Amino acid sequence: MVKFQRDFEFNIDENISNLMDEAFCRVVEECENGVAGYYNLPEDSKMIVTEVEALSSSETIKNSDTIAVIGIGGSSLGAKAIDSMLRHKYPQAKRLIFFENPDPVEISKKFASMDKEKTIFIVISKSGSTIETMSLFKVVISHFNLDLNGDDKDRLIAITDEGSVLCRFADRYGIKVYTIPHNVGGRFSVLSAVGIVPLTLAGYDCCSILEGGAKIVRRFFNREEDHILLKAAFIATNWEKYRMNVLFAYASFLDDFTKWYVQLWGESLGKIDKSGNRVGLTPLGQIGSIDQHSFLQLIIEGPIDKTVTFIKIEDFENDILIPDITLEGIQKCDFVNGHTFNELINAECDATREAIAQQGVPVDAIILDKLSETNIGELILYYEILTSLTGAILNIDTYNQPGVELGKRILADKFKK
Amino acid sequence: MVKFQRDFEFNIDENISNLMDEAFCRVVEECENGVAGYYNLPEDSKMIVTEVEALSSSETIKNSDTIAVIGIGGSSLGAKAIDSMLRHKYPQAKRLIFFENPDPVEISKKFASMDKEKTIFIVISKSGSTIETMSLFKVVISHFNLDLNGDDKDRLIAITDEGSVLCRFADRYGIKVYTIPHNVGGRFSVLSAVGIVPLTLAGYDCCSILEGGAKIVRRFFNREEDHILLKAAFIATNWEKYRMNVLFAYASFLDDFTKWYVQLWGESLGKIDKSGNRVGLTPLGQIGSIDQHSFLQLIIEGPIDKTVTFIKIEDFENDILIPDITLEGIQKCDFVNGHTFNELINAECDATREAIAQQGVPVDAIILDKLSETNIGELILYYEILTSLTGAILNIDTYNQPGVELGKRILADKFKK
Repeated sequence: MVKFQRDFEFNIDENISNLMDEAFCRVVEECENGVAGYYNLPEDSKMIVTEVEALSSSETIKNSDTIAVIGIGGSSLGAKAIDSMLRHKYPQAKRLIFFENPDPVEISKKFASMDKEKTIFIVISKSGSTIETMSLFKVVISHFNLDLNGDDKDRLIAITDEGSVLCRFADRYGIKVYTIPHNVGGRFSVLSAVGIVPLTLAGYDCCSILEGGAKIVRRFFNREEDHILLKAAFIATNWEKYRMNVLFAYASFLDDFTKWYVQLWGESLGKIDKSGNRVGLTPLGQIGSIDQHSFLQLIIEGPIDKTVTFIKIEDFENDILIPDITLEGIQKCDFVNGHTFNELINAECDATREAIAQQGVPVDAIILDKLSETNIGELILYYEILTSLTGAILNIDTYNQPGVELGKRILADKFKK
Repeated sequence: MVKFQRDFEFNIDENISNLMDEAFCRVVEECENGVAGYYNLPEDSKMIVTEVEALSSSETIKNSDTIAVIGIGGSSLGAKAIDSMLRHKYPQAKRLIFFENPDPVEISKKFASMDKEKTIFIVISKSGSTIETMSLFKVVISHFNLDLNGDDKDRLIAITDEGSVLCRFADRYGIKVYTIPHNVGGRFSVLSAVGIVPLTLAGYDCCSILEGGAKIVRRFFNREEDHILLKAAFIATNWEKYRMNVLFAYASFLDDFTKWYVQLWGESLGKIDKSGNRVGLTPLGQIGSIDQHSFLQLIIEGPIDKTVTFIKIEDFENDILIPDITLEGIQKCDFVNGHTFNELINAECDATREAIAQQGVPVDAIILDKLSETNIGELILYYEILTSLTGAILNIDTYNQPGVELGKRILADKFKK
C-alpha cells in the first residue's frame, strides 16, 4: 500500500479545477491516440515475463550468475533502480551489472569481475544506434571473444525498437530480440522489455511489480487518484517560484530510484513550450538521513525556491536495535536506545519533514507500508502519470528530447576532423 | 596540473573588481583571525600522516584489510570521495567501509561483509554527539562485541573536536584520539585527521594530496589564482538568475566527489544573510556521459537558470580501445572505431560543453591532466576557497549551519513522547 500526503495549502478554485480536468483529458487522449503507451505496459508486459521464465530453463541461463546490461539512460536506470531496491530481499538473485558509461576505468573494473561462461549479455538501445551503447557492445564482444555466429548467440539478447538497426542486426545473426513499443520512450520504458527482461532473468518477481502498476493506472483513469492531478497542477503552475523538486528518500537503497526520477523529470519537463518559452522543473535526489548532514541547511534557510517530496518506508522488515549502551559522557544520545534503526530513520524523516514545512516550503510525502514489489510498481506509475500531467499543464511535448541532438552532431564532427 | 577555463562573458568593471578585492580581503582576514582554519591543513596535517604511518606498523593494523569509518556528512563524504577517485590506482589499498546512514538494511548488509579481526574502526564526529554516528557506533560495538577495556582498544580510533564528549569518552578508555581544529568545519575537514587518518591507514599517499592543496593555497594568497575570485564574483552576483550550479563530471569515479561538493556548497551557501534575506545557490552533481542521457535535455532547452561546470580528466591512463568492429546495419556508429574510450568520453565532454555554451548557459571547466594525488588536493582546495569567496560576497556566515537544529529538536521530542 502506498499513501500520498501533502503538507502544503493549495486552493482548488475554478481555474485550478479546470486545469486539472484539462490535464486529465489530455492524458486520456494521449493514451487513446497512442501518443504515449506506457499506461499499457503493466498489462502487456505480463507476456514477456511468461516468455522469459520459459527461456530461463535453458542450460546457458541456468548456469549463469550474472546478467550484463549494456545500455545507458532509459536503457539502464529503471532496472538498476528496481535491482537496488529489491536486492536485499532476493539473496539468490543473479547479479546485474551495467555497462553504461564509456569510462575506461569503470569498464576495466567490470571486466575484471566477470566470467563469460556465467554471463548473459543484454544490449539495449531504443534507437539501436546509441554511440555509448554500441561502443560498449563492441568492446564486450571483443574482450569476451563473443562468437556471434556460434555458441555465444545463446548468451546474447537485444532489446530495441521494432525495425531499428539493432533489430535488423540481431535478426541477421539470429540473436533473440525483444522490442519496445514505438510509443514508449526510454525514460518511460522500465516496465517494458527494457526492465522486465533483465529483472526476470535475474530472478525478480516482475508479475507483482506489473500488478502494482496496473492498479494505480486503473484507479487513475477512474479518477480515484486525483491527488496526482492536484500535485501536477501545483508544481506546474508554480514552477517559476518553486524551480526545483527535491526527492528526499529515506533509505540508501532508494538512491538509484532517485536517479531514475531525475531522468524522468529532466528529460520530460525541460522543454521549449508550445509558445516558444523555456520551461521546466529541476529534479534533485537526496538520501535521508545522509543528506540531512549535507543539503538540508540550504532547504531550511536558503531561498524558498524548492518543493520537497519525502519517501518513507514504514516497515523495513528488519529489527536491528540501537543497543542499550551508554557511552560515558555521551548520555545525550541515549534517547534512542532500545529503539530500532527502522524507528530512528523514520523519526528523522518525520522530524525533517516537519522542520521543512515550518519554513513554508511546500512539502509532500509518499509512504510505502513496506518495500514490496507491488508498491514499487505503484510508485513507478505514480511518477510516470505525474510527469505526463505536469507536461500537459506546462503545454509541452513530454515525450520527445530534441535538446540533446546538437551535442551528438558536435561529437561526430570532432571525430571527422 | 589543473587548468581552469571559462566560456562565459563577465565584464570586470570597477564594481566587480572592488567586489573581488573585498572578498579576497575578507578571506585573508578569516584566515588571519582564525575564523576558518582549513587553509592551514595542507601544512599542518603532514604530521598526522607521519604519525599514522608509524602506527601502521602495529600488528593489529598490519593484519587488517578493512577500515570501517563510522561518521556522517562531513565525517565521511571527503574520505569517500578520495577513496572513490584513487581506488583503481591502488589495488593493494585496504577496503574502506562507511557506516553513515541509520538504514537497517544497509547496516545488515555491511555487517555481513566484515570480519572484526581484520577491521580497524574509526568513529568520527566533530561535536562528538551526532545521533546517527553514536547510534551506529553502539550497534558496531554490540555486533562485534568490541571490548573497550581490553584488546579491542587497538582497533579503535576516535576523531573529534578537542574537549568534545567523544574526546573525553575516548580518553577515559584510553582509545587513540585525533582532534579536528576548532576552526575547521565538518565540510571543510577532509584534509584534517577526518580524511587523512582513514586514507593513510588504507594506504593512500596523503602527502601528495596535501602538497597539491598547499600549492593552490599559496598561489591564491599570492593572487596568482584570481580566476577563483572571478568565478565567485560571477556566481554570487548572479545567484538569483542562475540559481543552480551543475557539476558535470566526466568519470564514474567522480560521483562521490560531486556529493562532497554538494555538501560543501549546500551547507555553506544556503543561509540567511546579514541583512536577513534567504540566499543561496543549489549545487547539483551529474556524471558524464550517463547524465547526457538523463539531465542534459533540461539544461539545453529548459530555463536558463543554471551554470554548468565540467570536470574532465585528460589522461585516464587506460588505453582500452573501441574495437574496429562493424555491426552490420549499425555502421553509423563506426566513426569512433579504433579510438580509445578515453578519447570518446572526453570528446563527449567537449561536445556537450560546446552545445550547452551555445545555448547561452554560463559554462566553465576544470581540466586535470591526469588523476594524480596532487591534482586531487588542488581540486579540493580550489572548491573550498571558491566557497569562502562566494560566501564573502553573499555576505553570509559561510562556516555555520544553524538551519538544521530545528529538525534535531523535533527528533528528540518524538522519542520523549
